[in-house]
Amino acid sequence: MAEVSRQRFLDWFGELADIGRTDTGWNRVAWTPLEVEAQRWFEAKAESIGLEVRRDGAGSVWAVTPDADTGPWTCAGSHLDTQPDGGAYDGALGIVCAFEAAAAIGESGIERRRPLAVVAFVDEEGARFRTACFASLAITGRLDIDDVLAAMDGAERIHGVSRESLLESRAQLANVESYLEVHVEQGKALVDRGLALGVADVLTPRQRWRAVFTGESDHAGTRAMAGRRDALVAAAPFIMAVSEEAGSRPGAVGTVGRIEIAPGSTNSIPGRVACLLDVRAREAATIDDLVTALAARFPEAELSRESRNDGAAFDADLRSALHAGAERRGVPAGDLPSYAGHDAGILAPHVPAAMLFVRNPTGASHTPAESASDDDCVAAAQVLADALEARLTAA
Amino acid sequence: MAEVSRQRFLDWFGELADIGRTDTGWNRVAWTPLEVEAQRWFEAKAESIGLEVRRDGAGSVWAVTPDADTGPWTCAGSHLDTQPDGGAYDGALGIVCAFEAAAAIGESGIERRRPLAVVAFVDEEGARFRTACFASLAITGRLDIDDVLAAMDGAERIHGVSRESLLESRAQLANVESYLEVHVEQGKALVDRGLALGVADVLTPRQRWRAVFTGESDHAGTRAMAGRRDALVAAAPFIMAVSEEAGSRPGAVGTVGRIEIAPGSTNSIPGRVACLLDVRAREAATIDDLVTALAARFPEAELSRESRNDGAAFDADLRSALHAGAERRGVPAGDLPSYAGHDAGILAPHVPAAMLFVRNPTGASHTPAESASDDDCVAAAQVLADALEARLTAA
Repeated sequence: MAEVSRQRFLDWFGELADIGRTDTGWNRVAWTPLEVEAQRWFEAKAESIGLEVRRDGAGSVWAVTPDADTGPWTCAGSHLDTQPDGGAYDGALGIVCAFEAAAAIGESGIERRRPLAVVAFVDEEGARFRTACFASLAITGRLDIDDVLAAMDGAERIHGVSRESLLESRAQLANVESYLEVHVEQGKALVDRGLALGVADVLTPRQRWRAVFTGESDHAGTRAMAGRRDALVAAAPFIMAVSEEAGSRPGAVGTVGRIEIAPGSTNSIPGRVACLLDVRAREAATIDDLVTALAARFPEAELSRESRNDGAAFDADLRSALHAGAERRGVPAGDLPSYAGHDAGILAPHVPAAMLFVRNPTGASHTPAESASDDDCVAAAQVLADALEARLTAA
Repeated sequence: MAEVSRQRFLDWFGELADIGRTDTGWNRVAWTPLEVEAQRWFEAKAESIGLEVRRDGAGSVWAVTPDADTGPWTCAGSHLDTQPDGGAYDGALGIVCAFEAAAAIGESGIERRRPLAVVAFVDEEGARFRTACFASLAITGRLDIDDVLAAMDGAERIHGVSRESLLESRAQLANVESYLEVHVEQGKALVDRGLALGVADVLTPRQRWRAVFTGESDHAGTRAMAGRRDALVAAAPFIMAVSEEAGSRPGAVGTVGRIEIAPGSTNSIPGRVACLLDVRAREAATIDDLVTALAARFPEAELSRESRNDGAAFDADLRSALHAGAERRGVPAGDLPSYAGHDAGILAPHVPAAMLFVRNPTGASHTPAESASDDDCVAAAQVLADALEARLTAA
C-alpha cells in the first residue's frame, strides 16, 4: 500500500500557502501573476517527483507519469486560484493532497495499469470575470468561448489562452479516465456529525431567479406617504419570505445576495427593484416547490429564471473506493452533498468523478477563516492515495 | 401695474424647452455643454429686453438692469440645469417667469427704487457630482470648495470656475437684496387642495441616516439555513418600518432609496447591509421622534446621521407680496411647505427669499411627466411680476 508522508504534505502545503498570502487573506486570483507563480511552483513540484508537465489549451497544468501516452489518465487535483482575500485551503488542499498521493504511489512500487495525473485547473473561482469552472467547462466543450473572451478582454493571454487554444482544449477530455478532488468542506455538516471526511454523493441542483417589483419612482421629499408605490417596501417581505420558505424545507437553501434598485438614489423613491435569488436543494423538485410558493405569496413580482443547474451524481465506484480507504485507515467518514459548484461537478456528467470533503471547524468559506486540522488533511491525502491505488490497479 | 405677455411667455418657454430635449426627457445636465447652450440662450434673451449680463465666480449668470451698480438687486430666477431625463418645468419655469416679469416691469414704466436682476444659478440639481445647490452654496460661503473641486476633477472649467473664482463669488451675495423663485410643484398637494399656486412658508427640515445591519457572510450554497445571520433578512423589516413610522406621522416622509450590500454577490449571504434613509417633516422634532422609534424597534441596527438640514423659513414680507398678487389676479393660492431643497432655501437664512409653486397635475418630479398648465404658468409669472413690482417700488 502507498503510504503518504505527513511531513512532506505539510511542507508542500506550507510552500503553496506562501504564494499570495497577505494580511487580509490569500490572493492568488485567476488571470493574475500570482496564479502564474503558483503554476511555476506546481511545475517544480511535479518534476521533483518524476512527473512530466503538460499544459492544455485552457491554461490548466497537468503533471503526468512518464507513461502518459499509453492511455487515458487516472486524475486527481483541484485549482490553484483563490477568491480575493480567500482562504488557505480552498483549491490548495486538493492540489497538495493529489501531489502527496501521487508521490506516495510512485514510492510504493505498486504496478499501475494506467497513467496517473495531478491537475491544476485554471480559474475555478471565477472571481475576476464571473467565469467559475473556466477550465473544466472548456475541456468539456461547455464554455461560452466568445462571451467569455469578450469579458476577459485580453487577460486570457497570461496563460497563453486564445479562442483557438480553447477549441483545442476539448481534446484533453479524452485523456481523463477519471477524476478525484479533495476539498475543504464549505460548511459545518461534518463537524456537526462528528466526521473527519465526507464523500460527496451529489452536486445539488441549483437555480437562480430574478424577482422584479415595480412601483412608482418619485421625489423622496415631495411625494407624500399616502399613495406611494415604493418598490423596495414591496420587495422587503419577499426577502424575508425567501428565508422562511427555504428554512421550512429540509436540505434547501435560499438567498437574496444582491439587489438592484432603480433609480437607486437617496433622494428618490425606488421605482423598480430586482432581487437576485439563489436556491439550492438536494432535489430539483424542492426548488420548484419553493419558487412556486414564493410566486403564490407574491403575485405582483415578476419572477424569471436566470439559470438552472440540475446538479450531478458522483461516480459510485469512486465513492466506494473513497469509503473503503477511510474505513481501512479508521477515519470517520460519511456521505455529504455538495451545495457549491466544483470542477468535479462539471466533469461528472462526462467521466467518472468524485469528491472528498475535509472537516472545516469554522465552517467558513472564501475567507481566511476557513480551516482544517493537519490530521484531517493528511488523512484525506491517505484516503485519496488508497482510492487512486485501487483505481490504478483495477482491471 | 406691469402686465405680463402670455404669448411671449409661451414663446420663450418653448425656446428653452428646445434645448436638451430628447426622446426620454430633458437633458441639460449641469457642467455639460447643454447647460452652457442654455446660458447662451439666457444671455441673448437678457439683452433683448435691455438687461446687462454679469457672471459670478460660481458660473451663474445674472441679467441686471443698467442701474446695476447703484445698489443691491431685487432678484428672481431659478436654474437652467435639469436632472438626466428630467422634465421641462423644473428650473426652466422659474427662469422664464422671471424674464417675463422683468420684461413686463420694464415695459410698464414704473419707477424702480432699486435694480432688478434675473438669475440662472448653476447646478441646482447636483446630478453629476452630488453638488445640489452648488451656486447658492458658493455665494453664501457654504460650499465645501476643496471637496467639491476634487469630485469635479476639472469639469468646473466649462463655466470658468476655479478655487479662486469660488472664493470671489462670495462677494456676489452683497448684491442680492432679495430673491424670489417660481417652481413647479413636486407633488400633488395643490391639485388635491384645488389651488393653482402655493406660497412656500418653510423649507422642511431634513435628515439623512445610515442604518447598518451586521450579520455573517458565508457561501450561499454551503451554509445551511439554520443559524444563518443574513444581514439583508435583518434589514428587510427595517425598510418596512420606515414606511410605517413615516406614514403614521402627519407631514412626515421617510424613504430608503439606496442599499449597500456586502459582499453583494449572488453566491454570498449578505454580511453587512447599510440602508440609506431620508426623513423629512414639517417639524424637526417629528424627525427626531421617528428616528427614535426606529432605533427602539431595531436595537441591533447601528444608526448614524449622515446629514442634517434644519430647513428654512421664507420671508414674511415676500410671502405677503405673493399672496397679495394672487389675490389681486384672482388666482386661488395657499401656503405650502417645500419638502425639497432649492437655491431659495439656501439663500433664505442670508437674504429675504420666498418661493411660488405652480400646480402640477401629475405630481411627478425629475421626470418628463412633470407638468403645469399654460394658464397656471402665466398666472405665476403675473403674480411674480406683481410681487417684484411691490418690492421694487417700496421705500
